[in-house]
Amino acid sequence: MVARAIIAGDGVLPGLLAEAGPALTVRLQGMPGGTGGADIVARLERLGGLFSDLHDAGVAEICFAGGMRRVGFDAAALDAVTEALLPRLTTAMGQGDDALLRDIVAIFEAEGFTILGADDLRPDLLAPAGAIAGAARPDGDAARARAVLAALGPLDVGQAAVAAQGQILGIETLQGTDAMLDFVAATAPGSGGVLVKRAKPGQDLRVDMPAIGPETVARAAAAGLSGIELQAGHVLLLDPAAVRAACDAHGLNLWAVP
Amino acid sequence: MVARAIIAGDGVLPGLLAEAGPALTVRLQGMPGGTGGADIVARLERLGGLFSDLHDAGVAEICFAGGMRRVGFDAAALDAVTEALLPRLTTAMGQGDDALLRDIVAIFEAEGFTILGADDLRPDLLAPAGAIAGAARPDGDAARARAVLAALGPLDVGQAAVAAQGQILGIETLQGTDAMLDFVAATAPGSGGVLVKRAKPGQDLRVDMPAIGPETVARAAAAGLSGIELQAGHVLLLDPAAVRAACDAHGLNLWAVP
Repeated sequence: MVARAIIAGDGVLPGLLAEAGPALTVRLQGMPGGTGGADIVARLERLGGLFSDLHDAGVAEICFAGGMRRVGFDAAALDAVTEALLPRLTTAMGQGDDALLRDIVAIFEAEGFTILGADDLRPDLLAPAGAIAGAARPDGDAARARAVLAALGPLDVGQAAVAAQGQILGIETLQGTDAMLDFVAATAPGSGGVLVKRAKPGQDLRVDMPAIGPETVARAAAAGLSGIELQAGHVLLLDPAAVRAACDAHGLNLWAVP
Repeated sequence: MVARAIIAGDGVLPGLLAEAGPALTVRLQGMPGGTGGADIVARLERLGGLFSDLHDAGVAEICFAGGMRRVGFDAAALDAVTEALLPRLTTAMGQGDDALLRDIVAIFEAEGFTILGADDLRPDLLAPAGAIAGAARPDGDAARARAVLAALGPLDVGQAAVAAQGQILGIETLQGTDAMLDFVAATAPGSGGVLVKRAKPGQDLRVDMPAIGPETVARAAAAGLSGIELQAGHVLLLDPAAVRAACDAHGLNLWAVP
């Protein structure tokens, strides 16, 4: 039988994916979320050992899920497999987090594993087109924020933006959507604007799909926004019922467009 | 003799321009900076009266200088000239601050006045190409921030951006450069990155030229940046000696490129 493993980071996504069916949970030492409840605890320095463990368990499918962060390498702990990969990993690190993640995925693929996206396991988490909570209001502000993201996408910048009354009030940078919403709350409160969140064109959606949770909704409400527009089929709701409930509680409209 | 008038808003620019030669100072009621020391105190509701005053004083050249803000109209105080202009002013207001400013400038031009830019009166305030304080360091981060501004320019968004180690940490929105620098200071301290500030392609540099002062330098230093890059000939230094001194005091490099 084909076994599946979830390489779990921070947040609720690993738990939501585990509900999709039997899977081993792998946790990497040093990553957010800790190593509690893991079937396999691994180290980036010992990828050879991890690959052996996975093959021994009959694992053929891997899903990366949840927040990861960079960890340092302990040179003294390297096994032969990681040591051989070190030059390319170091090069990828110098090119940014996206490049590093792409390279790690490619290494797992080269090892014979199939990479599943979160939406392969839980398609029900994907934002569907149309109204999700309240009404769909893809107005001029949403279009303006969308245009900003479209312009920045080729530069691999900008997963989210806020617009109100024709003006751009926030553009997501490395610090993420939450930091941008806090900025808007502090500097342009009560705008009644809209948050637009979409995938970047180059983003590998199998391992790095944009997501919103109930906290995102609460932060958008605290920033005085009136709605959130997502890219249909390209943003995860974590989880859908909690996100809808948060929108209803805060009186926010939530919808998705292609 | 041709007389000149400075329509003065907030900040140090009106005073710096007054040093360029004799000029009447016009202040508009309700604008930041107050009406103290003005030769003519005007109201937007009574543009007819202002035009008469300016013509009577032999004014042929007008320079708009310093920060302005929108003020409400008192419908009961309108003179015939402003009343006739009201439909187009209202339309322009609905299209944003830039459109409103462009329209007001066009109204003054139609009235026979020549509009001078701050750099017509004080070309010495313009950022010159090359090193201005410390050394010129137009590195990869500066190029990355420049690319972001180039992508956003056609959308009339983004006069400044911050990049560090290949990552974008801040993109200026309606709230301005200071708010963006405070955001970077709070969310990504000690990055050693660079602030890039340039004019937007559609910007009317006669009435709305980007500027930096010593406070901008202090804020960039507080955000942990190592340098500031300006667009040569398109950004004002208010004033050059104070900006250079602030850079030296904070150990920041300041340079300009085409």
